[in-house]
Amino acid sequence: MTGPATTVTTVPDTAPADVDAVVAAAAAAARPWRSTAWDDRAHALERVADALDAHADRLVALAAEETHLLEGRLRGELTRTTFQLRFFAGVVRTGRHAGAAVDHADAAWPMGVPRPDLRRHVRALGPVVVFAASNFPFAFSVAGGDTASALAAGCPVVVKAHPGHPRLSSATADLVHDALSGAGAPEGVFALIHGTDAGRQALLHPAVRAASFTGSIAGGRALFDLAAARPQPIPFYGELGSTNPVVVTPAAGAARPGDIADGFVAAVTGSAGQLCTKPGLLFVPEHAPLLDALAGARLAATHPLLNERIDRGFRDGLARLRRVEEVEVLSAADDGDAVLLGVDAAVFARQVDVLGEECFGPASLVVRYRDEAEVVRLLASLPGQLTTSVFAEAEEASTPYVRELVDVAAERAGRVLWNQWPTGLSVTWAQQHGGPYPATTDPRSTSVGASAIDRFLRPVAFQGLPDALLPGELRDEPVPPAAARLVDGS
Amino acid sequence: MTGPATTVTTVPDTAPADVDAVVAAAAAAARPWRSTAWDDRAHALERVADALDAHADRLVALAAEETHLLEGRLRGELTRTTFQLRFFAGVVRTGRHAGAAVDHADAAWPMGVPRPDLRRHVRALGPVVVFAASNFPFAFSVAGGDTASALAAGCPVVVKAHPGHPRLSSATADLVHDALSGAGAPEGVFALIHGTDAGRQALLHPAVRAASFTGSIAGGRALFDLAAARPQPIPFYGELGSTNPVVVTPAAGAARPGDIADGFVAAVTGSAGQLCTKPGLLFVPEHAPLLDALAGARLAATHPLLNERIDRGFRDGLARLRRVEEVEVLSAADDGDAVLLGVDAAVFARQVDVLGEECFGPASLVVRYRDEAEVVRLLASLPGQLTTSVFAEAEEASTPYVRELVDVAAERAGRVLWNQWPTGLSVTWAQQHGGPYPATTDPRSTSVGASAIDRFLRPVAFQGLPDALLPGELRDEPVPPAAARLVDGS
Repeated sequence: MTGPATTVTTVPDTAPADVDAVVAAAAAAARPWRSTAWDDRAHALERVADALDAHADRLVALAAEETHLLEGRLRGELTRTTFQLRFFAGVVRTGRHAGAAVDHADAAWPMGVPRPDLRRHVRALGPVVVFAASNFPFAFSVAGGDTASALAAGCPVVVKAHPGHPRLSSATADLVHDALSGAGAPEGVFALIHGTDAGRQALLHPAVRAASFTGSIAGGRALFDLAAARPQPIPFYGELGSTNPVVVTPAAGAARPGDIADGFVAAVTGSAGQLCTKPGLLFVPEHAPLLDALAGARLAATHPLLNERIDRGFRDGLARLRRVEEVEVLSAADDGDAVLLGVDAAVFARQVDVLGEECFGPASLVVRYRDEAEVVRLLASLPGQLTTSVFAEAEEASTPYVRELVDVAAERAGRVLWNQWPTGLSVTWAQQHGGPYPATTDPRSTSVGASAIDRFLRPVAFQGLPDALLPGELRDEPVPPAAARLVDGS
Repeated sequence: MTGPATTVTTVPDTAPADVDAVVAAAAAAARPWRSTAWDDRAHALERVADALDAHADRLVALAAEETHLLEGRLRGELTRTTFQLRFFAGVVRTGRHAGAAVDHADAAWPMGVPRPDLRRHVRALGPVVVFAASNFPFAFSVAGGDTASALAAGCPVVVKAHPGHPRLSSATADLVHDALSGAGAPEGVFALIHGTDAGRQALLHPAVRAASFTGSIAGGRALFDLAAARPQPIPFYGELGSTNPVVVTPAAGAARPGDIADGFVAAVTGSAGQLCTKPGLLFVPEHAPLLDALAGARLAATHPLLNERIDRGFRDGLARLRRVEEVEVLSAADDGDAVLLGVDAAVFARQVDVLGEECFGPASLVVRYRDEAEVVRLLASLPGQLTTSVFAEAEEASTPYVRELVDVAAERAGRVLWNQWPTGLSVTWAQQHGGPYPATTDPRSTSVGASAIDRFLRPVAFQGLPDALLPGELRDEPVPPAAARLVDGS
């Protein structure tokens, strides 16, 4: 790895008056976009995906230039991004997101008072500010998961561009804007702004109803605090930091040392370790052959990091870990940057505040534990996580120890994996990408998968309304007829 | 109405060391309670309901003494409260709250990367602090909706007693505690604490994972701010303030002046106006016969308010409204306390900050509007509401004006009613008791109805886990077999 070479072209910050205009336009678009039929909204998302696919070569070239990420990775990420837009189109078409529930009037309702006719659905919150991430210039940026799910929910979106890829951001935004317009979406439903102050101004604008963020703990917490301190506080979905611990049982460490070491090195160095799901902690039994395999692992030099700030942060993080005297280098790339560190569990336990903190980039800490009780205790002492993984042998699945490990893992994380590395992140119905603080600022939410749409919706109940005034999915003859709903509790 | 007569017996504040012990016990109970089978958890809730029913006479007498509320109202409230506990038992038994979703592995998943086996359910957040309300000593207090839904979710509960009914709180807590113990629930799963400082201490305890509150904007916002400023912020569900506007169309005002006036007076003065859903604003066409009916309405003297603080707050609120020169008295009870005030819409529009604020107690403001556009504009200018009601004639349901009214109402409120007063609040599957700030601090949540349980749950996804390690409802052979789940998106 060498330091970032190219100088990033800067794009001027959006002026305060322009931020105001953008948010005002988003507010004006809120009602027509929310009222757009599910099928038309889905169609608009598909047109955005088509536009990005049609310009894949140009977008990938721009992304490679601005982020140093490799072309293969970027192409895969763009495929994932357009899949995600189409996936949310599918989510909206099912109508399941609407959470429609119909309770007919019931004079004999055992509450002691007759039950009125009550019908509930969810409604778009209103304009959402999306703070784009640096490390996924497609999937967590301008047209990424937050934008897709907020638009799918019926919310206008104002994206605050990440300064790490400003030209890609602008190019993507132009395509998104034109595709939405072409599909008949209201003007103002999508916009891009640049600059830290512009982002803060948008977040504090009274017309904004929610915000999402992917990035550092410090940056995310500062924005969370601003959102919470508004005269009208708004939901803030921040994905901040996670070390994604991986526990290897003695049996697994003995049976598969080579496979586990290879998989670990690949997970730590892929995309130069710049993934929110990179395994930053590996708990390994001491005296295991796995330790030899890790010490002998060959780490290839990685490509330059995303930008100077990330590069500096990585070097600072590494220095912080290495300041702990007992931490040693197990293995390193020739240029010394990609690195596996090692430490005893007893030292880790004493300095968990320092050693348990995320170091974003191609490094990870291997923690040698003595016994089962120790690793359970350590896992329980960690802060909230996006993921926790257990590598164990199949026959261990029924042991009390492994059951305990999985329960403690689920207590601290949003996703628990079995003999798999956490770096892959599939976009599916059941996916959960979130977790207790500081993994996210809202453990009830996910930023990936079908449920991501729920972040931008709120319920409204209608009591005694005539059919003509009800949202389509709540009518006695529902529109569309196939809308998923819960009727009288069934 | 005369001022509160009885002196409330005070109960000593819980000492800091005792608060710590209570929260530590709740934390220790979190895992066994979360792991309790749905059916056993449901059974425990039903035992609590049975215990309250069995002691109804004693509880109602205590409540009447401490709150001045009338016996009939209190009996109805207790019925509602025990119904609610049984209702949540039923919710848990369906398993629908678990949000189980199973995505089988799919090598051909169109994301470009094979889909792993992913299975998601929700998991109890952990210990919850419930700040009890003064105005519903049963339904929103010690064994009220927040406690019922948090226990149903699998969370231990620490209730901070409202100082307005300390002896009832203690008596209720003893019954709840014993019933839970008798049903085999773990020790520590439920406790009561007293005192403002004790409540704050519990809210800030690192083991606490969520909190709920029903009360004033000032009190709720202060606690919300504390919860958000914690090193690990937690969800805070505050139900704060709402004026619950009611709009009467010219046609309805002309057709049913007597009925509407009578219903309005009953809604404003029932329980001496101490309901979070009391209609505090009535928008009426000027020159309507309804205005004469309101001016001629006979308001009975009400019973004393809940406590001295509420009484003082009511008098201050009334004085605030009457300081606006153009506000006049339309009608008042003989003792001058229950009162309907009147003002022109133009004045209201100019002073919406003062006149649109909640005045908790037996008073309401009648706003005379000139035309349809004016009332839509006023409604849109109000802050977030728990409810908004429209009184109109059946044939108006298809008019653009009424459609617009209902849409603006849904934009600002959590529940929209048609020709019904908002004071009744049924506990059902589709109920939504919430709304944009300041009605609540979290517009995505409800404190009444089946979905109230969702506030205390967070999702966890399991990737590639063997059946033996999965929660029952996620297994290939689900336990219980009837658990509601979403399989591969259907």
